[in-house]
Amino acid sequence: MVIHVTDEVPRSVWYGWGDPSRGKPLGSHALEFLRRTLKLGSVAQNHPPVELSDVRVGPVTLADDVLTQLRAITGADHVATDATTRILHAGGKSTPDLIRRRSGDALDAPDAVVFPGTAEEVRAVLALCVQRKLAVVTFGGGTSVVGGVEPLRGRFAGVITVDMARMDKLLHVDSLARTATFEAGIRGPAIEAALAPYGMTLGHFPQSHQEATLGGYVATRSAGQASTGYGRSNDLVKSAHLETPAGAFDAGSPAPGTAAGPKLLDVVVGSEGTLGVITSATVKVVPVPAQKVYGSWAFPSFEAGAEALRRLKHDGARGDMPHVCRLSDTDETASTFKLGGWKTGALARYLGIRGQKTPAMALFVWEGDARENRAGKRRSAKIMRAAGGISMGPLPGKSWEHGRFSGPYLRDELLTRGVYVETLETAATWGLLAGTYASVRAAILDSLQINGAAAYVQTHISHVYSDGASLYFTFLSGLEADGLAQNARVKAAASGAIVAAGATITHHHAVGIDHAPYMGAEIGALGIKVLAGIKNTLDPEGIMNPGKLIPPTTAPPVTTSPTTKETP
Amino acid sequence: MVIHVTDEVPRSVWYGWGDPSRGKPLGSHALEFLRRTLKLGSVAQNHPPVELSDVRVGPVTLADDVLTQLRAITGADHVATDATTRILHAGGKSTPDLIRRRSGDALDAPDAVVFPGTAEEVRAVLALCVQRKLAVVTFGGGTSVVGGVEPLRGRFAGVITVDMARMDKLLHVDSLARTATFEAGIRGPAIEAALAPYGMTLGHFPQSHQEATLGGYVATRSAGQASTGYGRSNDLVKSAHLETPAGAFDAGSPAPGTAAGPKLLDVVVGSEGTLGVITSATVKVVPVPAQKVYGSWAFPSFEAGAEALRRLKHDGARGDMPHVCRLSDTDETASTFKLGGWKTGALARYLGIRGQKTPAMALFVWEGDARENRAGKRRSAKIMRAAGGISMGPLPGKSWEHGRFSGPYLRDELLTRGVYVETLETAATWGLLAGTYASVRAAILDSLQINGAAAYVQTHISHVYSDGASLYFTFLSGLEADGLAQNARVKAAASGAIVAAGATITHHHAVGIDHAPYMGAEIGALGIKVLAGIKNTLDPEGIMNPGKLIPPTTAPPVTTSPTTKETP
Repeated sequence: MVIHVTDEVPRSVWYGWGDPSRGKPLGSHALEFLRRTLKLGSVAQNHPPVELSDVRVGPVTLADDVLTQLRAITGADHVATDATTRILHAGGKSTPDLIRRRSGDALDAPDAVVFPGTAEEVRAVLALCVQRKLAVVTFGGGTSVVGGVEPLRGRFAGVITVDMARMDKLLHVDSLARTATFEAGIRGPAIEAALAPYGMTLGHFPQSHQEATLGGYVATRSAGQASTGYGRSNDLVKSAHLETPAGAFDAGSPAPGTAAGPKLLDVVVGSEGTLGVITSATVKVVPVPAQKVYGSWAFPSFEAGAEALRRLKHDGARGDMPHVCRLSDTDETASTFKLGGWKTGALARYLGIRGQKTPAMALFVWEGDARENRAGKRRSAKIMRAAGGISMGPLPGKSWEHGRFSGPYLRDELLTRGVYVETLETAATWGLLAGTYASVRAAILDSLQINGAAAYVQTHISHVYSDGASLYFTFLSGLEADGLAQNARVKAAASGAIVAAGATITHHHAVGIDHAPYMGAEIGALGIKVLAGIKNTLDPEGIMNPGKLIPPTTAPPVTTSPTTKETP
Repeated sequence: MVIHVTDEVPRSVWYGWGDPSRGKPLGSHALEFLRRTLKLGSVAQNHPPVELSDVRVGPVTLADDVLTQLRAITGADHVATDATTRILHAGGKSTPDLIRRRSGDALDAPDAVVFPGTAEEVRAVLALCVQRKLAVVTFGGGTSVVGGVEPLRGRFAGVITVDMARMDKLLHVDSLARTATFEAGIRGPAIEAALAPYGMTLGHFPQSHQEATLGGYVATRSAGQASTGYGRSNDLVKSAHLETPAGAFDAGSPAPGTAAGPKLLDVVVGSEGTLGVITSATVKVVPVPAQKVYGSWAFPSFEAGAEALRRLKHDGARGDMPHVCRLSDTDETASTFKLGGWKTGALARYLGIRGQKTPAMALFVWEGDARENRAGKRRSAKIMRAAGGISMGPLPGKSWEHGRFSGPYLRDELLTRGVYVETLETAATWGLLAGTYASVRAAILDSLQINGAAAYVQTHISHVYSDGASLYFTFLSGLEADGLAQNARVKAAASGAIVAAGATITHHHAVGIDHAPYMGAEIGALGIKVLAGIKNTLDPEGIMNPGKLIPPTTAPPVTTSPTTKETP
């Protein structure tokens, strides 16, 4: 039996990710690789965050009677206005979020943080906020990397953050239907721990898994590292309970396969806190897999590897697709070889002899019954070999899995060492994938390499669909004096390239503040009107997460979508 | 290579289904079974439809300049106001629709029928209808059995039916992404014929397949007979172009796996013509299967068969689930044996010897690669046997497939013979399935058997999900003098039982007029407000298919949803 239960970690430190003591510091070899590659004079720890006591946070602008009423709703213990709690809720985990907080800026912190214990308490909090014209930001794990939980007050007098930490229970398991209902504030590891006695798993492991909550998964249409096998959060969720300023809304049929009108659950999924607070959700669960099988393959190029993944998806038997299916480009493969810390010398020499001096590495993990896993791996090997792949055995997959939640810790260390690092992602149809990869990569490099600075971009595919695949870019450069401007410049360049390529502005990071300006290109002006209309029904005062998802009412950027066309 | 291309048939006759010459009349043995079972004095052809020339149709209430403008938009040849065309668009194919038209009542016929050739023409027609306050009904195959295409004029001066017949082209195939884009008026057989040169299939075969259109599939979240394998229309559609009174709306991302906010495509899918006219859609396609494999199993009871299907779905390997997966209850199995016309005597005797005097029969069809089909069938056989099934070989599945589009013809003959017949459907989670089956069946029987009348109900599962299954009820009785009242009585009783059981009001027939009163129980009062708000954004004047999907603004019926709960 595979163990899907993962470590529960304390909630993140105010300036970065998780529990810093769990980070694995970079070795001297890796540091030297970084310094040389990014042409930096130093990668010493010269850029630590300020002391918590030096962080600037604005005054609480709420009237005393508002706080009195909030305390009456949730109990006095569950309303916080102290600086530390407010700083901990001053934003999410994007690189600009961290740059801002590390420099001591938490001026946008919410006026108060409320920790409700029930849906009824959430409802009462919303009613009070409607009455007193206060903005409401829902906070699950606080792991948004697109500004999704920034406590913007918009046109309101104050902003309350509703932290869902106390609503973390398993409510109900229907073993026959294979569904489980949880309160929305439950975090990834606790979901798996609660399902373990039933022998079930949700199978949802985004990199943010240890911090993120079920409500966040649903609110952002999240995808996990094994979503090629288990499905994205939007595939997993069957129904959700939403508390809105207009009342309680149960979205999603209790029955399977209904045709009773539009699927309104898909209005709630991806709504990013702009319609109401998701207080509970029912999700599909499956038995914990009996076993895992690992495979890895080296391809002569990223394009060749992507074509191999497409063939596996299209030509493989129904059980062939691995649950985890990743392909690194040659740059990411090279840095993995250099920084990964495994005994890769022999492997690299072997690939060199086989003619792959700059390989692109694919990692697979099959989860399930041993016989089915073996069959899937065996059949897929045929397709991989036919596509020019060289088998590299199980170790690279196991090694990746071992470190799969540790990426964000590395970012904290890099920032301390004066290295700018950020990620962004998209997805495109197979026909547009190579073009999207090339143009987004070039846009990132061009915008980082101004004034002779060096930069490094590495890319992977982590999700494979019938019609296309995701692309995830990680990029590094020296941290400029104005890191926020540096970040905004890269992000704008990359986003423009994504839109021009006909790809989606986000595959799994969601919209938040950062991608809202591109929603016009994504869903059209009328689509934005539809979104705004739905919001107007459920949140007529506009208090829910203002400034997120729905762009300000300006003309949306125009784009042209290339298409691949053919005749028989 | 399996042939998925099906016969193209002329559009339906005005009083019933398809091309009546293709119906297979009931034999004397079957007629006698019916007469005896329903305790009827006669099943002679005493109830033919009136002559077309005797059908009553109201006057055209449109101003001449409206017709002039419509003709200017589409060309004069593509605007019809003649009685025959109007009668052909006077409603759909529910039993009450047919009873009404067969009796000579087409008073609700639209004032005019417009046949646009392009999305731009649709847009211009809608603009004119907004300006002149005319209701608009979109008509694809006209196969709705829930009143979805009734030309209700609501509070408007007139009603225009937009018939999509001319918009029937394949626009685009993306072989790499395995998607195809069609105009929405293309009918089922033409979809398959257009895909055949590419070696691809949509795999969507509802019983209405030969008449229904792609736009209708999308507008109603339809399910086909092989949807357990290929997926429902909502799984197949990737994007749709909608012309609305507020403008053109492209719903659905061109990219796979986006997280850019709520999936607005799911607002269009299932919107049943109430938001606008779907003019084209992009759908997932797959290679035509190399081969089909058939299986059938007899179970001692419907419950035992349903449990076997659940185990197959939950415990089978990923490739085990057949594309077609049906289970008849003992009544449907008995009538199939009696009416089906195969050599079933020996089979029934064999099952009797094996202890199954009243079996419930399951039919399976696997489609795909020969080796994969064989493996799926072999592995599933283990699960079927363990669940008490007795194999009956491939013939029952082949026989079902041969007649799978002929059911609606039979209804026309039955009505002519004075036999009332109708169908309705639902879906429930596994834990609620037996209770739903029992209570809906009892409600149908009780409401038909008043005044000592006899009735027959037969039921099947045709779609299997991880969390539950569909239930499809077919019921017969003598046609009462007021067949419309008879139908309304049964439908109300069954719908009440469905709501009380915690099942969905419709699994694949959609909402239309008939199920609109139950939408409050299905999606809640706030859900209806959300739907109405979306409609208000796209169709502020409310001209699109008035009276459908969204119930009149009265308090929705209240219901209690039973749940199955357990602890480890």
